[in-house]
Amino acid sequence: MATIRANIRAMSGYVPGEQLNDPDIIKLNTNENPYPPSPRVFDAIRAALTSDSLRKYPQPLGDSFRHAAGRVLGVDPESILIGNGSDDILTILTRAFVPEGGLIASPTPSYILYKSLAEVQGARFEKVPFTADWQLGETWPRADLAFLPNPNSPSGTVVPDEQVESLSRRVNALVLDQAYVDFAESQGPPVSTAGHPNHLIITRTLSKSYSLAGIRFGFAIADPGLIRELVKVKDSYNCDVLSLAAATAAIEDQDYFRETRSKILTTRGRMNIELAKLGFDVTPSEANFLWCRIAKPMKPIYEALRQRKILVRYMNYDGYDGLRISVGTDAEIDRLLTEIRSLV
Amino acid sequence: MATIRANIRAMSGYVPGEQLNDPDIIKLNTNENPYPPSPRVFDAIRAALTSDSLRKYPQPLGDSFRHAAGRVLGVDPESILIGNGSDDILTILTRAFVPEGGLIASPTPSYILYKSLAEVQGARFEKVPFTADWQLGETWPRADLAFLPNPNSPSGTVVPDEQVESLSRRVNALVLDQAYVDFAESQGPPVSTAGHPNHLIITRTLSKSYSLAGIRFGFAIADPGLIRELVKVKDSYNCDVLSLAAATAAIEDQDYFRETRSKILTTRGRMNIELAKLGFDVTPSEANFLWCRIAKPMKPIYEALRQRKILVRYMNYDGYDGLRISVGTDAEIDRLLTEIRSLV
Repeated sequence: MATIRANIRAMSGYVPGEQLNDPDIIKLNTNENPYPPSPRVFDAIRAALTSDSLRKYPQPLGDSFRHAAGRVLGVDPESILIGNGSDDILTILTRAFVPEGGLIASPTPSYILYKSLAEVQGARFEKVPFTADWQLGETWPRADLAFLPNPNSPSGTVVPDEQVESLSRRVNALVLDQAYVDFAESQGPPVSTAGHPNHLIITRTLSKSYSLAGIRFGFAIADPGLIRELVKVKDSYNCDVLSLAAATAAIEDQDYFRETRSKILTTRGRMNIELAKLGFDVTPSEANFLWCRIAKPMKPIYEALRQRKILVRYMNYDGYDGLRISVGTDAEIDRLLTEIRSLV
Repeated sequence: MATIRANIRAMSGYVPGEQLNDPDIIKLNTNENPYPPSPRVFDAIRAALTSDSLRKYPQPLGDSFRHAAGRVLGVDPESILIGNGSDDILTILTRAFVPEGGLIASPTPSYILYKSLAEVQGARFEKVPFTADWQLGETWPRADLAFLPNPNSPSGTVVPDEQVESLSRRVNALVLDQAYVDFAESQGPPVSTAGHPNHLIITRTLSKSYSLAGIRFGFAIADPGLIRELVKVKDSYNCDVLSLAAATAAIEDQDYFRETRSKILTTRGRMNIELAKLGFDVTPSEANFLWCRIAKPMKPIYEALRQRKILVRYMNYDGYDGLRISVGTDAEIDRLLTEIRSLV
């Protein structure tokens, strides 16, 4: 048998949230957007669906997307790196900054993929606990790379820009994972004006706020010199022609984006109030999900909901557990609240 | 400035073949298929173009594709790993088998990406020259991973199964890169019956023979236990929902595949004869391109063709140079032959 590296054999592998095929299920477990993508996305995909675009290689750097995103976000297109989902971007960053035996740091409880990225790279991984009110811990190692999701998952909380800047000074490179930033009050530190822009890499995804988890598109924003190095690490053609068309159309339709964002924020507010009424301790969230806990066993609640065809995420971080519930449509949340009422 | 790993800084980065936007150009430089993908591919993409499929995460392991490909190729679906192009698969294999400072080996002249994969991984790279008649060299290092493209690029030549099997015994793991195998006479050693199946990993792409370079889809075939390890290395959702639909439809339409393959083989035969008449030494090819050389400076021929809007690939391996010309439509090849006739 060909010998696989020991770090790969030893790891258990990241397990993504359940993807069931049952169309009747109410899926509140992987923070997908409950609303369709912009109608312009469908038009753009149909327009790109030609023999020539399918049979030929796509744009290696996704220049059409980079120019569109640059305009919308007010950044230099040269400071944008395209990715096959932001997972691809996180992998590229890991490979660019972290040698085998190097160190990745991340707060905890947080996105559990970061540990898997360290394991695949053969790197060490160090967790720095959040404070009780979800502020950054004080003592950080001098990591080759730190991942800071902001807003964080599962909490939906945001650490202020000063803490981000301070952390960026204390590690070799800081990845500010803004997968959920479009649901937050503030967009975080602009990469162009942050105190240490060269240490700060911002990552974003179109999976959540642009309703495009199925097409896999994410991107990084960083210093153009750094982006040129990251291009060496990515696969030459890491984004396909239809995804590029979809992503470009989605980010250009800011009116539609604002409309669905607004609906999600309204529903999130209502969920918060109703879950609190049922006795849950709900962490104030700036993301499209809520982290809620209650003083009784929570795994059985998750299981009972699952039996009733409502999928939420039960998460357990070394004994600190809770339910992470995505913000669905109003009808989905009504169903959830009805069922949960009978369970607590 | 955040410090990028030295191996990344030191590398120049893989440069893919030129992708010009000019629709008038005759593109014979990156081995794209000159014919459209199967009509079923368009139908499948249109059918998959729903709000739900775009907004939700896709199948992590691509089970629909795995079952279709398993049926068509006569292999266990569990022995198939899906990839975002076969580049993604080659990256996954590198990360799974090669530690930092480890060794990757490949024949030369061959696919130049393999060296870049070693550089990104911080691994050493050793080239083993082909013999003058494109057979495998005898002396191979005990590499962590060897890449053997079969048919090879730029030569289009095939080494026989016995040489493949012999090499698989001499390295930790052998990747048989069959990007062009669909244009060859033989499909190579079946993974299920090869002498050392656990040492042998087959990779394929739908970019060339299925005319789908734009949608990025490749796959690996290997021992199911090995595939389970590789799943830990890949990004969770590395293939998007539209690519999966396209790839599944394409591989299911074997009649269409045989039809375009047959046209390409016929044109290849004609190109071979005509280029030889013009004084070129043309290597007999089992791929969808020809490697041809002539006893005069070849870079100026490439440049003159480029000025006349015909793109071919000029390749130079430490002084051994030539032109790699993709098999186009008959009309494209007629244009090429007319222009080249005036240049040699």
